[in-house]
Parts: sequence; C-alpha cells; structure tokens
Amino acid sequence: MTSLKIGVCGLGTVGSGVIKLFNNHQGLIQQRCNADLQLVHIGARRDNAGCDTSRYRVSRDIFEVVRDPEVDIVVELIGGTTVARDLVTQAIQAGKHVVTANKALIAEFGNELIALAEQAQVALRFEAAVAGGIPVIKVLRESLAANVVSGVAGIINGTGNFILTEMANAGRSFDDVLAEAQALGYAEADPTFDVDGTDAAHKLVILASIAFGIPLDANAPIMEGIDTVTPEDLNFAKELGFCVKHLGIARRCGDAIDLRVHPTLIPSNRQIARVDGVLNAVMIEADAVGEIVLTGPGAGSLPTASSVCSDLMDLGKVLNHTKIDPAPILGVPSDQLQALPLVPRDEVSGVWYLRLVVEDRPGVMADITGLLSERGISIESLIQRPPVAGSSQVTVVILTDSVACGRLDAAICDMESLPALSGSVVRLRVESFKEV
Amino acid sequence: MTSLKIGVCGLGTVGSGVIKLFNNHQGLIQQRCNADLQLVHIGARRDNAGCDTSRYRVSRDIFEVVRDPEVDIVVELIGGTTVARDLVTQAIQAGKHVVTANKALIAEFGNELIALAEQAQVALRFEAAVAGGIPVIKVLRESLAANVVSGVAGIINGTGNFILTEMANAGRSFDDVLAEAQALGYAEADPTFDVDGTDAAHKLVILASIAFGIPLDANAPIMEGIDTVTPEDLNFAKELGFCVKHLGIARRCGDAIDLRVHPTLIPSNRQIARVDGVLNAVMIEADAVGEIVLTGPGAGSLPTASSVCSDLMDLGKVLNHTKIDPAPILGVPSDQLQALPLVPRDEVSGVWYLRLVVEDRPGVMADITGLLSERGISIESLIQRPPVAGSSQVTVVILTDSVACGRLDAAICDMESLPALSGSVVRLRVESFKEV
Repeated sequence: MTSLKIGVCGLGTVGSGVIKLFNNHQGLIQQRCNADLQLVHIGARRDNAGCDTSRYRVSRDIFEVVRDPEVDIVVELIGGTTVARDLVTQAIQAGKHVVTANKALIAEFGNELIALAEQAQVALRFEAAVAGGIPVIKVLRESLAANVVSGVAGIINGTGNFILTEMANAGRSFDDVLAEAQALGYAEADPTFDVDGTDAAHKLVILASIAFGIPLDANAPIMEGIDTVTPEDLNFAKELGFCVKHLGIARRCGDAIDLRVHPTLIPSNRQIARVDGVLNAVMIEADAVGEIVLTGPGAGSLPTASSVCSDLMDLGKVLNHTKIDPAPILGVPSDQLQALPLVPRDEVSGVWYLRLVVEDRPGVMADITGLLSERGISIESLIQRPPVAGSSQVTVVILTDSVACGRLDAAICDMESLPALSGSVVRLRVESFKEV
Repeated sequence: MTSLKIGVCGLGTVGSGVIKLFNNHQGLIQQRCNADLQLVHIGARRDNAGCDTSRYRVSRDIFEVVRDPEVDIVVELIGGTTVARDLVTQAIQAGKHVVTANKALIAEFGNELIALAEQAQVALRFEAAVAGGIPVIKVLRESLAANVVSGVAGIINGTGNFILTEMANAGRSFDDVLAEAQALGYAEADPTFDVDGTDAAHKLVILASIAFGIPLDANAPIMEGIDTVTPEDLNFAKELGFCVKHLGIARRCGDAIDLRVHPTLIPSNRQIARVDGVLNAVMIEADAVGEIVLTGPGAGSLPTASSVCSDLMDLGKVLNHTKIDPAPILGVPSDQLQALPLVPRDEVSGVWYLRLVVEDRPGVMADITGLLSERGISIESLIQRPPVAGSSQVTVVILTDSVACGRLDAAICDMESLPALSGSVVRLRVESFKEV
C-alpha cells in the first residue's frame, strides 16, 4: 500500500473542514482509496479555534509545507492569487502534486500552472473550486467524456442566490439582505466578487474550459452583477411567470463561445428556478446524455472539504499503481486545448425584460412601441401599471422577442432620449431553457 | 499510447448507442482518454437497422467476442442474467476487463462476479446499470468517498415515473398509460419488472452496496409496485399537497439498513417531486456534503451509452499507466464489505396515507378513528368526501403520524373487520425528506 503524505496550507473555512474530515474519517479514507493517505503538515498563519490540529505538524510559514520533503501532495486553501500562486508554483516545481479549491487562481493563472504541472508530471486537481460540494468537474471531465457539450448553465454563487432568494421571497432590499448574508458568514467582508459576478465568472471559465476544450480565459465572460436587481423587478418577473437567478452561462454557438454571468429571468416551472438560498445547481447539455442537472451545497466548510478530499482520494487510488495522474487536467492535454472566438457582446441574441418609468399621457406608449418596432424588435408581453395616486408616471414592463444585444442597445438608447422617459431603462436577460 | 481493443456484445437499445458514439466521436474519445481506444468486434444475434456496424467485425455468436484474443475489454449489453452471466464470467476468466449496463446481473450475481474480477485483476464497471445517463455510481463511489452516506433515495425507473406522471397530469388510468408507454418503447413488452419494482430494486441494491459498504443482496428491498395506485389516490395526494413517485429508498438506521421500493407521497414542493416523465433523480444524503441531487435521463440509447463510454474512457486513462483499475468495484475491496442487518419490515416507521370506503352512517368515523387511537396511531389529516348522489358510501382519506409498519398492519386488520368498511384499505407511504 502506497503511503502518501499530505500538507494542507490554510486553516480557514475549507481548510478546517478538510482537517475535520481527516480527524473523523481517517479509517474510511484509507479503506476507500486503498492507500495510506496521511495528513502530516498544516501551514497556517494562525490557529482556528474550531479545529483540532494537535495530531499534525503545524507551521506558521505556509511555505514550510512546500519545503517539507515528507509531503507528497500540497493542498492550497489560502485563497487569493498572489501568495497562492507562488505556493502552488513552488509546490509543482518541487515535484509535489497539488489540490486546490481556488477558482480565482485556476481561472486567472491556470494555463501557466497546468503547463508547469504537466511538465513536472504532477497532478493538479480542483474539484472544490466550482460549486463546492457538487462534483461538477468530475462529471464534466469524466462522466460526460464521450459527449460533445453544447452548454453549461448554473447558479454557481451561493451568496448571490441567497440574496436574490431572500429579496424575492421576503420583498427585502438588496442592501438589507446583503448585510444579513455578511452577518451569517455567507458573504465575505468585501462581497464585491460575489455581487458583481467575478466569483461566478471564475467558476464559469473553468467549466467552459473543460466543457469545450478551450484554454482558461478569466476575462472572457460578459459580466453583470445582481446589485441592480430591485424587489420591483422580482415582483414583475413573478407576475410574468419567472424567477430571477444569477446565472453563469457557457454556450457553444457554431465555432464561437458565448460566456456570460448575469441576473436572468427563468420560467418558474424550470427545475433550476426552484434552487433557492445558498444552494448551487449546474445544468449540462450534451449530445449523448441530453441534459443533466446537479444540485447541492455550493459552499460551506464540510461540503467543500468533501470535494477536496475526493481529489485527494482519487490521487491516492491511482498513485498506488502509477506515478502519474492519468486524467488530463482540463479534460485533454493542455497542448490540445483550442481557443475559440467569443461571440461579440452585440451579437448575443436573447429575450429581454425591460422596465421603464414614463409620463402617463397619450402617445407615450405609441412612441415606445414604435421605437422598438423601428429596430425590428417584437414585444412578447407588456404590463402597464396604473399610476400611483398623485403621480403622473406609470411603470411599463416589456418582454421582447429574441433580439441581438446590439440592436436592443440601440433601441434603449432611442427610448432614453424620449422626454417622456424618467431615468434609464432597466434591462434583464431572459433564458427559457428546455422543459425538463 | 496504450492501445485497447473493445468488443461489444448486444446491439439493442444501449448497444446501438455505444456503436453510434464510437462511430461519431472516435477522435474525441481517443483525445480525452489519451489512449487508442478502439471498438473492434461486435457480437449480436441479429443486425440493428439503425446502426452502422460496417467498420467492425461482427459475430452472430456473441461468445466469439470473448474468445477474440484481440479484445481487451468486453462490453456486455445483452441484458438478462443467464447468457449474460456466462458471458461476463468467461470474459473475466479470460483476463478481459468488463463493462456492463446490466443491473439485474450486478444485483443478483455481482458478489460472485466481483470476487472473480478481483482475483483476475480485471476491471468490472457498471455506471450505466443505474439511472442511465446520470453518473450516480461515480459520484457515490468517488466524489463522496470521504463521506459517511446516511441515505439514498431516487426515482430510478423511468417507465414507472412516466406512468405515474401521466396518471397524475392527465387523470388517466394505469392500464391506459402503460399501453402508451409500451407503444412509445419506454416499457418492455413484459413490463412486470418496471411496474412491480424489481428493476428499481436491482438499482437500489447496487446504490446501497456502494453507499454503505455492504454486499449486494438482490432480495433485500421491501417492494411494492405502482399498479395499485389509482387516479383517485393521485387526486387526494394532490389535495393534501403531495405528489406520488415510485421511489427507491436506502437508509442507514443505526447499525441496520432500511431498503424499500414503493409508491411514495412526497410534498409537492420538494425538488424530487417535480421530476416528471422518464427522467430519473437521485438524492444522496451524506455527512460532509449534506444533500446533493442528480437529475437526468434514466434510460434511452445515447444517455445510457454515454455512461458505458465513460467507464470505457476511465479504463482507457488508467490502463495507459497501469494494468490494474485502481478503483475498488463497490467502493472498497469486496473482502472489506460488511453485511448489515435489514430493519424488519414491521419496524420500519413512517407516515401513511390511507384511503377507505365506508358506509355513510353515524358512528362509523368514530369506530375508525377509535381503532387507530387504540393502536396509538395519531391522525395528521383527514378528508371525508360527501357521498356521491344515490350512494350510501363515503370515501375517507387519512394521513397518519409516524408509526411502525407492524402496528399499522394491525390497525388496518382491525378496520377491515368492520362491517361498515367496503373492500380493503388502500395504503401508501409518505416521505417528507428535508426541505432543500
């Protein structure tokens, strides 16, 4: 039985979860991977009160773990892309296998790290980097390996989904729910990446790379945050039969790739529309399997640790028999990844939800619908609310037919130049997906 | 690059799907498993008109495939447990790896076949045997390897789910929908195994073995079919806020295992309640991850072939580097599986739906509720319908609190001896699951 020694760097939410699983399930872990997989060394700048590290060597300098000749596998759980990048680079260069939960690191520096790992013939695995406890990377990379994947769409940021769910169910404002999410520990002290879509974009880039065999490109996705979604929009969406979710969408469009993260109206009867709170869900559409949907906890200490440990145990199993991780890191060897062009933002077609506030007087609606018509944009549904008592303004909500984004931009520009319009036009994308 | 030659036995629904994937995706399959994985030999008693086999050697005697010295991996897709058992046994004894989609074979003869495969140091994989295109075996065996699994529950027979969905949505009778399912090719000419729960029980036994580390025992599950479910029960269930699904349930109860397949009332707002038609869904509850749900096509030519090919490609990847499949077939080596006692049927506790037809006269309801009360069974909800014009009988529906099955049996026996009761008491189990 091969003996494999593990060093864990980082003792935060995920790190402490991994330590707990090794503390509690050591026998089960060894039995199931049939290898003597031992946690030996922890690198952490400070202790974590909830986590018993007494059985392990602990270093305050996390690089001690990389320098430890006994350590075969380095687990990077410190997050961020500066120290983590150095740490992973040095680990690979020292001939150690690496497991990480760091989506930003993989999305932004994955290409260089994967090339290094392939050269050094060490493993680099990151199941926990996307959708926490949901094994979406394994499913895409291994289970659907005989499929041509046409699309991946998911709720891949639990914080954002918690905020939208609370806003929709309790009619609360974005700021109010965000404050609660921070108090509950769902959102970071700086929640920017959760709110503006950066975190979801990192995860989407990793999924797209595996799904389509393209290099990682952290800057590729079109990105829109959830901070512009109002309870009013959630109510109108509901009235029209939709839920609003912050989706990451990756689609193959001919020989180009469409990558987007944005708040999205989804028909309420779709499975993914019912994934609420901090849950994540990923839909995968592929030619042989059709569609599969994976739902589960997208974050959290033990769910994410479960994914980290599955990577470690997969390595335990194969390194028992061979020195090389037989699974290509992104599904194919990195020199066989093929960059594909992105669909230009203007050419991305879709259905849109528009909300505008206009003067309540004759001719205004004719002006608006006329402008849309001039741009060849059809109206699928329209709601006009009577003015609030004492107000001379009415709210109009329009659901368009499918239209290229560039043409919609032009129509909105036209509308916003109408004197009868107050403020700017709120716009949200609509995705119907297939009925499953 | 290792060259691996594949022989496929069986050219039915799944076999023809596998051939199609090899015909259409040969380049992709080779690239992604980085092995020269070639289909070379097909064994089938007759051609399949929809399937181009011109590139391959075809034998009418399927055992020719096993005897072919060129073949490294035998794919068994003939179904059944007689010839298939001989075929797989001989393939293993000839030192060939085996991939199969045959749940009956694995559930009934898996213990002996796995022991043979371990002895011969060949792989035996069967992702396609459970839930078609949903990679539930890989997820349980690999992704959740660091978890103690407490329960698995799923809709794992697409035919049964199609029938119940149609009955519920269109108010049609069981016989009527079954005939349509047969015409559509969902149900076999002999649909007994789909209807009585045998097919689902086979799949459940495989899942339970991996989830709990227990030997396969095809006779373990308590089994109830869907042929006793009436449109009337589906309507009452709906009124009470439930859907009816044919579920396979495997639960760890202390040191015992509870295994059951039966029609089940599930609260309509649960995710699994919304899995309709031929879709399958599997929920897994485990200590680290919490709960994950996998949904997708549970049958069909290409979805099932997708799972067969993922097994082949996993083997392609590892056999590139080592002669041995490093993944224990049931999650742990078979000599480490530990049999656990089954919870006796009488002791399985749960909530029940009861429907009875009684004389519409004073005192009858008092008799019924009194009998339940004498057995210590509380009533959670009760519906009594006014008698149909001209009838002297009323239908009563009762939702009990949780009660052991043995005690309920006794109460039903008491009720059925009441002269006011007409016919027998209809009983269905209720499972609430956790809100996700």
